[in-house]
Amino acid sequence: MSGRIRLGMVGGGQGAFIGAVHRIAARLDDQYELVAGSFSSDPDRARASASALHVAPDRAYGSWQAMAAAEAGRPDGVEVVSVVTPNHLHADPAIAFLNAGIHVICDKPLCHTLDAARELERAAKASRALFALTHNYTGYPLVRQARTMVAEGAIGTVRIVQVEYPQDWLTTSLESTGQKQAAWRTDPARSGAAGSVGDIGTHAFNLAEFVTGQRVGSLAADLAAFVPGRRLDDNAHMLLRFDGGARGMLWCSQVAPGNENALRLRVYGEFGGLEWAQEQPNLLVHTPFAEAPRMIRRGGAGASFIAAQASRIPAGHPEGYLEAFAQLYRDFADQIVAVREGRPPDPMSRLVPGIEEGMRGMRFIEAAVSSGQAGAGWVSLG
Amino acid sequence: MSGRIRLGMVGGGQGAFIGAVHRIAARLDDQYELVAGSFSSDPDRARASASALHVAPDRAYGSWQAMAAAEAGRPDGVEVVSVVTPNHLHADPAIAFLNAGIHVICDKPLCHTLDAARELERAAKASRALFALTHNYTGYPLVRQARTMVAEGAIGTVRIVQVEYPQDWLTTSLESTGQKQAAWRTDPARSGAAGSVGDIGTHAFNLAEFVTGQRVGSLAADLAAFVPGRRLDDNAHMLLRFDGGARGMLWCSQVAPGNENALRLRVYGEFGGLEWAQEQPNLLVHTPFAEAPRMIRRGGAGASFIAAQASRIPAGHPEGYLEAFAQLYRDFADQIVAVREGRPPDPMSRLVPGIEEGMRGMRFIEAAVSSGQAGAGWVSLG
Amino acid sequence: MSGRIRLGMVGGGQGAFIGAVHRIAARLDDQYELVAGSFSSDPDRARASASALHVAPDRAYGSWQAMAAAEAGRPDGVEVVSVVTPNHLHADPAIAFLNAGIHVICDKPLCHTLDAARELERAAKASRALFALTHNYTGYPLVRQARTMVAEGAIGTVRIVQVEYPQDWLTTSLESTGQKQAAWRTDPARSGAAGSVGDIGTHAFNLAEFVTGQRVGSLAADLAAFVPGRRLDDNAHMLLRFDGGARGMLWCSQVAPGNENALRLRVYGEFGGLEWAQEQPNLLVHTPFAEAPRMIRRGGAGASFIAAQASRIPAGHPEGYLEAFAQLYRDFADQIVAVREGRPPDPMSRLVPGIEEGMRGMRFIEAAVSSGQAGAGWVSLG
Amino acid sequence: MSGRIRLGMVGGGQGAFIGAVHRIAARLDDQYELVAGSFSSDPDRARASASALHVAPDRAYGSWQAMAAAEAGRPDGVEVVSVVTPNHLHADPAIAFLNAGIHVICDKPLCHTLDAARELERAAKASRALFALTHNYTGYPLVRQARTMVAEGAIGTVRIVQVEYPQDWLTTSLESTGQKQAAWRTDPARSGAAGSVGDIGTHAFNLAEFVTGQRVGSLAADLAAFVPGRRLDDNAHMLLRFDGGARGMLWCSQVAPGNENALRLRVYGEFGGLEWAQEQPNLLVHTPFAEAPRMIRRGGAGASFIAAQASRIPAGHPEGYLEAFAQLYRDFADQIVAVREGRPPDPMSRLVPGIEEGMRGMRFIEAAVSSGQAGAGWVSLG
Repeated sequence: MSGRIRLGMVGGGQGAFIGAVHRIAARLDDQYELVAGSFSSDPDRARASASALHVAPDRAYGSWQAMAAAEAGRPDGVEVVSVVTPNHLHADPAIAFLNAGIHVICDKPLCHTLDAARELERAAKASRALFALTHNYTGYPLVRQARTMVAEGAIGTVRIVQVEYPQDWLTTSLESTGQKQAAWRTDPARSGAAGSVGDIGTHAFNLAEFVTGQRVGSLAADLAAFVPGRRLDDNAHMLLRFDGGARGMLWCSQVAPGNENALRLRVYGEFGGLEWAQEQPNLLVHTPFAEAPRMIRRGGAGASFIAAQASRIPAGHPEGYLEAFAQLYRDFADQIVAVREGRPPDPMSRLVPGIEEGMRGMRFIEAAVSSGQAGAGWVSLG
Repeated sequence: MSGRIRLGMVGGGQGAFIGAVHRIAARLDDQYELVAGSFSSDPDRARASASALHVAPDRAYGSWQAMAAAEAGRPDGVEVVSVVTPNHLHADPAIAFLNAGIHVICDKPLCHTLDAARELERAAKASRALFALTHNYTGYPLVRQARTMVAEGAIGTVRIVQVEYPQDWLTTSLESTGQKQAAWRTDPARSGAAGSVGDIGTHAFNLAEFVTGQRVGSLAADLAAFVPGRRLDDNAHMLLRFDGGARGMLWCSQVAPGNENALRLRVYGEFGGLEWAQEQPNLLVHTPFAEAPRMIRRGGAGASFIAAQASRIPAGHPEGYLEAFAQLYRDFADQIVAVREGRPPDPMSRLVPGIEEGMRGMRFIEAAVSSGQAGAGWVSLG
Repeated sequence: MSGRIRLGMVGGGQGAFIGAVHRIAARLDDQYELVAGSFSSDPDRARASASALHVAPDRAYGSWQAMAAAEAGRPDGVEVVSVVTPNHLHADPAIAFLNAGIHVICDKPLCHTLDAARELERAAKASRALFALTHNYTGYPLVRQARTMVAEGAIGTVRIVQVEYPQDWLTTSLESTGQKQAAWRTDPARSGAAGSVGDIGTHAFNLAEFVTGQRVGSLAADLAAFVPGRRLDDNAHMLLRFDGGARGMLWCSQVAPGNENALRLRVYGEFGGLEWAQEQPNLLVHTPFAEAPRMIRRGGAGASFIAAQASRIPAGHPEGYLEAFAQLYRDFADQIVAVREGRPPDPMSRLVPGIEEGMRGMRFIEAAVSSGQAGAGWVSLG
Repeated sequence: MSGRIRLGMVGGGQGAFIGAVHRIAARLDDQYELVAGSFSSDPDRARASASALHVAPDRAYGSWQAMAAAEAGRPDGVEVVSVVTPNHLHADPAIAFLNAGIHVICDKPLCHTLDAARELERAAKASRALFALTHNYTGYPLVRQARTMVAEGAIGTVRIVQVEYPQDWLTTSLESTGQKQAAWRTDPARSGAAGSVGDIGTHAFNLAEFVTGQRVGSLAADLAAFVPGRRLDDNAHMLLRFDGGARGMLWCSQVAPGNENALRLRVYGEFGGLEWAQEQPNLLVHTPFAEAPRMIRRGGAGASFIAAQASRIPAGHPEGYLEAFAQLYRDFADQIVAVREGRPPDPMSRLVPGIEEGMRGMRFIEAAVSSGQAGAGWVSLG
């Protein structure tokens, strides 16, 4: 690669959580350089953010529209933008940059309504530019290994899928205190029709489909808003039926005290099982039927080539969330450079979720909300 | 207590698993003496079992009918019998002994059909004799502590209940090999209308109601028989709605490789959570919201009086399944002796599940099977 | 076995901890019947204990001397006695019963002085009666499996042995409060020359030798009494050199807050390792070099015949301390019955520690104390 | 901070492990820019490395001498260099850059001989430039919290320190295969007088002193080289006596199969304990005496300000080795910028280990080797 990829950012000004994560992820493997941004709709915050981020003042824009226009016209304009705004502000900038031929990395979920998602899908398909969606848990080495093991038949046909993502930070009415992260996530106008289902249920759903290689055909969802006054679900229980014959459960919650980001997947097939938990991401438990369970550790014996490729340091030195997030940036960099160079990308780089996974997530949200409204009746994901 | 309680046994001949467990449980605290039994319908096995168990030859009966008749007429006849036969052979002997004024300890589930269960319920209510059902997991000290903590408001109103009981021993068609335990459990004639739901789902259900103090009002169940040719469910996924407002999930499976008896309960309330797992029974994790999680260990700091009462040895020396099972025997002994002595039993001894819990389990099985047949529609537990 | 073994007990009156454990252990497998005892030097307590334990009044003795004399003369006299008194009261009764041809089960350590130990050793060797020492951790199924795996070369020649037994119950001066267990254990007159080293260090030492099959040739011990005013060590750190070339460390402590009975052994050889912890006794971790670690669970895949033989219930239903303790009683029962029947005992029954292990423990205590007094210089165990 | 700190690197060419780690660490928080390097003594590898690392060709030097001379003369010359060569090549370049007024970040241990260390110490004290030593485990948020808790008396006076760092990668004679990392680490000429003791024992030692705030006064070390033909220790067992009265043990090993980087510290005081393990770095177990153990999680309840300051992302999203390493770079950046700006550095930034910790490590190595040669006699650390 002859030079770093020129990166812009929409959102992610000072105080935002996920913007900072994207920037570290972009920086970790040294393949990107942040050169422009519309970090905030507040001009002062935008300017201060740019300065702190070593972005030149003339490339610190007051709006993504201005940024798209100006950058598209520069010979040294951004090659890719990261969209890290709240859900309702994903689709419009993403479409604009795609239309301008600029690659897009978009935070999940894809956006806040299925209609907007469809427009974005059209734009992504029409554009020659690439689109990535940061379902970041797919960047963990042992998640990728689990996917490969399932695909290669290590546990036989998958029968059972248990996936869950409990948190506890919305156990009380945090949104009433003015806390920003809580405020937009519990507001239908900004978050969309779902609360916990959109925010973390989509991660669980994506992880289940990613690892099993099966698609959820239909679901029955019992949604609840336990905290008085809350307008969106803060807990959801779902039955899942997969198109390959597996059955499963999905639980997401933001009101389960003691749980931080306890995303966990268990998959059982005809002759084995696999278990992985986000809070112990360097371990994959493989349970071949009638054999002693094996602890596969990132970088250790039993870890595969695919896991090694998504790793930076030797076994026993824990990698975490940022490294997994960075893996998506690293893989997407290969896709971008492949376009630059007119070569096919490394096959592994295609593991980065894209518009298709984004649309799956939107259908999942819609199905879960519909089912919830219908008393947990079965709804097809189409 | 002036003398040991005279105990008889129905079933439990050589080679049976649960009969041996009941005998150890009865022996552990030295409050029972096994003096009679109809251990097997095969006379040779019955005799050999009696001899190995130090039961006098004249009290080794060829049938429970003969045993009931003879023992009821002896001044030193059995005061209590343990019924440890397969499900379809619970109700008749239990009714006979209750009618004879002899206390009954019955293995779970109560029996194989709701009709038989109703007859047994009538007999139990009509008899002056006592009835206990060995939902043995309620005998674990920290399960009892969890129940007490919930009742005393330690976690506030319960919102979420996650309970599961996965096993793996039926991952393949073990019943085809002639294995006895597998054969009767997968046979509708002997096991009843449910497979995994009756065998282990009932334990999970009982545990959830025991600890939360809430009753499941309705459920939606997706039952599957994954192993080709199997006639009863070997996996079930359920949504639960509790009468106190909680929502939950129940998963039971006998085809989840790597799981032995991985019964696990997690309960979350307005301001805290509790987690307990049968395979690590000496630990109860308490997660007060916005505080560091606490590891409450049996016998250790934070363990309550109720847990200590159900314990035999100090902290750090693990107790297990047999001790928990024995606890039900110990508690029921107090009930029996209280009758002897015309005094009220120790309140804690009332924690032993009885006919009511048995009927709850039968309604649970019926509801789950109905729901499963109706494509996982909601069914009330009445 | 035609009848239960007639058992007597020395010590173990009401309120004692270890006496109750021995009785449960004796009862668990129904091979013993407690028929006599000198439970306490206090006549009232002795009588009350006997009554609570269903021992006939005429066989509740006021002293072990009286018991030995009377029982040796009865045709139905005790065949074996359990000695469960404090350390300084082990040797005399044990010698007396051995001299009377009555088998002895003695709690550990063997006794309080090396001189007394030598006398006891002589008596044991001279007697036709058998002697067992309850280093109970050797009764755990997976400890026995570990020993077998090492012996069979599963990890190659052992290089490294890390063993530890931390507790916390003496973190403060509990003995000053009058607590009985603390009082005798911190009193040189009753406990012997060592505190934690004798009480729990001996268990760790015994476990290390039992599993590795190597003997400690010499040690260097740093003993400390951290609690002001305490006369015996409450913490000890040791370097170990084994006669087979292994090197190791032993740590025992009674002042390590948060530790209950955290006995743990790790053994590493040329091509693999084994890890076991008493508080999770149903798990043995096997770490073959350059392979994924394997979780061997009691009763599960990978568990051997030897483990199964020391087990009572299936995998996933945890067994604990009492079952392991009972295993020694079960094995010793086989030895006793073999004598009765004039046949050789089952080879597995020889795993019960005896006088030789008791003498090893005494030499360990002496060496540790000598080394400690000499500023942790090396001392040979002879 | 107005611009990124200009960083150079000595060593760390393609294929090196620790150089890549240092670069990621430098990049993570975006406070450094790598602008120069003498990455390898092989000119082709040096050039290729520079190109891959976006370093201008004219600042890719063939030797650190050339680099020191040239960079010291440039107005835009490096402000700091990272020395990431094998141990025997630490001191000379570090001294040269310090003499040139350029700050130095040096990998541990300080160097390969005590004489060289003393020279480096003199240079560091004489220079106005700063010196940092990457004992990277001190960068973990919960290690810092542990240190603070001890300092604030949360567990009382420390009595017991158990520290260990087992690995398994040298279980066989990897150095014989030509593996580079193994080759220099087992070669006295490049590694110094110690093997495992210098490579990882120093980390364990540093961690123990860092957290307890006590210094090791003397030690007794039993060193072994288990692999035939190996010239340096691959396993060491030590007794420790601290100047504040604590006693401890240190175990380091590179031949313990199943262990990757299992650095673990346990500290027990008069009224509590703390436990931390590098492979689960987001958890600190606090065991106040006579209370239930508390699980303090990075970012969660119970995590202190000091931990938060060394953290980047919220609780439940695991951070790992790279983030901890980056923390030292971040802190050292503050020290460097404080010099630039003529202000005192943030007090927390002083947590970065420096020359003093380096000298402690060298004395530790020397003492351990001396003790080992003297049959594990006590040696003072002076």
